[in-house]
Amino acid sequence: MTMNTSQTGMGRVSVSVDLGDRSYPIIIGSDLLSDSSLLTPHIKGRQVCIISNVTVAPLYLDKVKSALSDYDLISIVLPDGEEYKTLDVVAGIYDRLLEEKFGRTATLIALGGGVVGDMAGFAAATYQRGVDFIQIPTTLLSQVDSSVGGKTGVNRPLGKNMVGAFYQPKCVLADTSTLDTLPDRELKAGLAEVIKYGLINNSAFLAWLNGNLESLLNKDREALSYAIKTSCEEKAAIVAMDEKEAGIRAILNLGHTFGHAIETAMGYGNWLHGEAVATGMVMAADLSCREGYITKQECSEVEKLISAAGLPIRPPAEITPEQFIELMGRDKKVEAGKIRYILLKDIGEAKVSDEVDEKNLMDTLSKK
Amino acid sequence: MTMNTSQTGMGRVSVSVDLGDRSYPIIIGSDLLSDSSLLTPHIKGRQVCIISNVTVAPLYLDKVKSALSDYDLISIVLPDGEEYKTLDVVAGIYDRLLEEKFGRTATLIALGGGVVGDMAGFAAATYQRGVDFIQIPTTLLSQVDSSVGGKTGVNRPLGKNMVGAFYQPKCVLADTSTLDTLPDRELKAGLAEVIKYGLINNSAFLAWLNGNLESLLNKDREALSYAIKTSCEEKAAIVAMDEKEAGIRAILNLGHTFGHAIETAMGYGNWLHGEAVATGMVMAADLSCREGYITKQECSEVEKLISAAGLPIRPPAEITPEQFIELMGRDKKVEAGKIRYILLKDIGEAKVSDEVDEKNLMDTLSKK
Repeated sequence: MTMNTSQTGMGRVSVSVDLGDRSYPIIIGSDLLSDSSLLTPHIKGRQVCIISNVTVAPLYLDKVKSALSDYDLISIVLPDGEEYKTLDVVAGIYDRLLEEKFGRTATLIALGGGVVGDMAGFAAATYQRGVDFIQIPTTLLSQVDSSVGGKTGVNRPLGKNMVGAFYQPKCVLADTSTLDTLPDRELKAGLAEVIKYGLINNSAFLAWLNGNLESLLNKDREALSYAIKTSCEEKAAIVAMDEKEAGIRAILNLGHTFGHAIETAMGYGNWLHGEAVATGMVMAADLSCREGYITKQECSEVEKLISAAGLPIRPPAEITPEQFIELMGRDKKVEAGKIRYILLKDIGEAKVSDEVDEKNLMDTLSKK
Repeated sequence: MTMNTSQTGMGRVSVSVDLGDRSYPIIIGSDLLSDSSLLTPHIKGRQVCIISNVTVAPLYLDKVKSALSDYDLISIVLPDGEEYKTLDVVAGIYDRLLEEKFGRTATLIALGGGVVGDMAGFAAATYQRGVDFIQIPTTLLSQVDSSVGGKTGVNRPLGKNMVGAFYQPKCVLADTSTLDTLPDRELKAGLAEVIKYGLINNSAFLAWLNGNLESLLNKDREALSYAIKTSCEEKAAIVAMDEKEAGIRAILNLGHTFGHAIETAMGYGNWLHGEAVATGMVMAADLSCREGYITKQECSEVEKLISAAGLPIRPPAEITPEQFIELMGRDKKVEAGKIRYILLKDIGEAKVSDEVDEKNLMDTLSKK
């Protein structure tokens, strides 16, 4: 795989996600939304549908609409929240597209965070067996996470993201200006995934994060742009090696097995995904230390960075170790009944482990 | 693309559908269901779910179950009928798989006709973003049509097959013994698609069909096996050139634009799909003649063959030409408001046409 990051002028950078004939660019910078020249090369038909939600639409929908005024344009505004990431809501998208006689050359644009992107992406993957798809992520989390990798889908009552497809967008616009309106709590949740890329694969980036956390928390656009670019590059490199998560891609789930258990136990929406992942990463570091991979000193540095980003480092006291194990057994990453753990072999290097010492695991799960 | 048909012993033949790393074999012959050696090479995990319906399950489910008794096996029996080809029914499949803690290495097996195959295939394409899938089609129509091409999906109130995915099975078993229990009306409906392959691409096969129609209607296994094999080869060759129906694959829709309009107008289930396609092919031949491609003599030979197969050759008198045009405008094959017609340039050669003479079209639609 080859990966390109190039300057495109006006302080914009472009990261190319290289997946053969499914390759696409991620454009990162400010004030991208109203620049139609970034979108039109990726739209092949006349019919365009922008999918957003009630929180984001009032802020940015008109900007994107005016950039695309030359097209047969409709928009669908969804309710906001993980609890609406359902088949029923996606069915509503299908039916609106059918009413408007949208055909196979239509393009769907996701304007919003991860939930909007997952649903619009799944609708695009399955409407008439697949139409084109563009992502405009408006949260830090979705800019560094769901904009790379093509994971789309919805939840079922028995589990998150249990229905979906791998489906790549034609392009992604990560507009740092949209982060101006992002609540601080969500910014911090996004930083959890940014820190993850440093932890699993890039200790130099981790050092940079340690030195620039303040700027990021203050929404400095240049710092954010660099963090987004580096995160996308890291994820793109891993996804290009393993698009369908047959092997190495699993390391992107650092903190997620513990994190999903927390999210499920607490009820969707009470802990933000990034918050649960942050705590999950501290737990993974703790387990990695107990398993003899990283030192206590390194483990506490991980904890310190995550805490400094304003993120939780301990799971809720009410989740017992037994409950953790039961919940983790339901994760998609479970194979043949075996929970797979993503551990830190070193700071900046993750590994997948099918086997951990039971006492170590219980100690990690009991640490509150 | 390369295509292989090989004898595999015991009167079985194998047609290979060549799609790079998504290639798979279609095994055609009698008494395949209980032969576990045909299935096990294509099952990678321990968990297997057989999806069938209330009509087919009592006849064949136990046979397949005993062939797979070494696996963690569950079965799901769906109601029978096109009206159940819905997202809700597929959601029921997801939830059963989740209850049984089926993971990403699970395999779904479709045992039944096209509706079961479409739904099980769509469930496989989307459960946990894709699990393995095996097809055991038990109708002539599904053996010659849906076993090649990877089209999966469900209906919406506003249109058939409007939601779905292109998703290839790991293997297909077309067991001619299962046709013993197929009602004659459904056998004839399957023959409509068999005749289609002759019409669009193989005049020698069409001549063979003219000479062997009686044997096929009498369910002669050797004749059926040859007809299935040739149909699958024809379809595989076209699909290999154009997996996602960007161009040439559209010729497989000969008769379908008219046919879908008939099915929709009459209500799903009143006309069988194959019956509607049969009439649609006669209409396409009629239009091809009016457009100056085939002679009146050739057109009437098409009509004679389809009629001899016991299939209808005229649309219901109550569908007006205007209603036809309105219904055809809703078809997935419509692009930018233009209906695309699949015509016969010659007997054994189809072509796609975006433009037909309006008077010719009205004359074809008025012929009752």
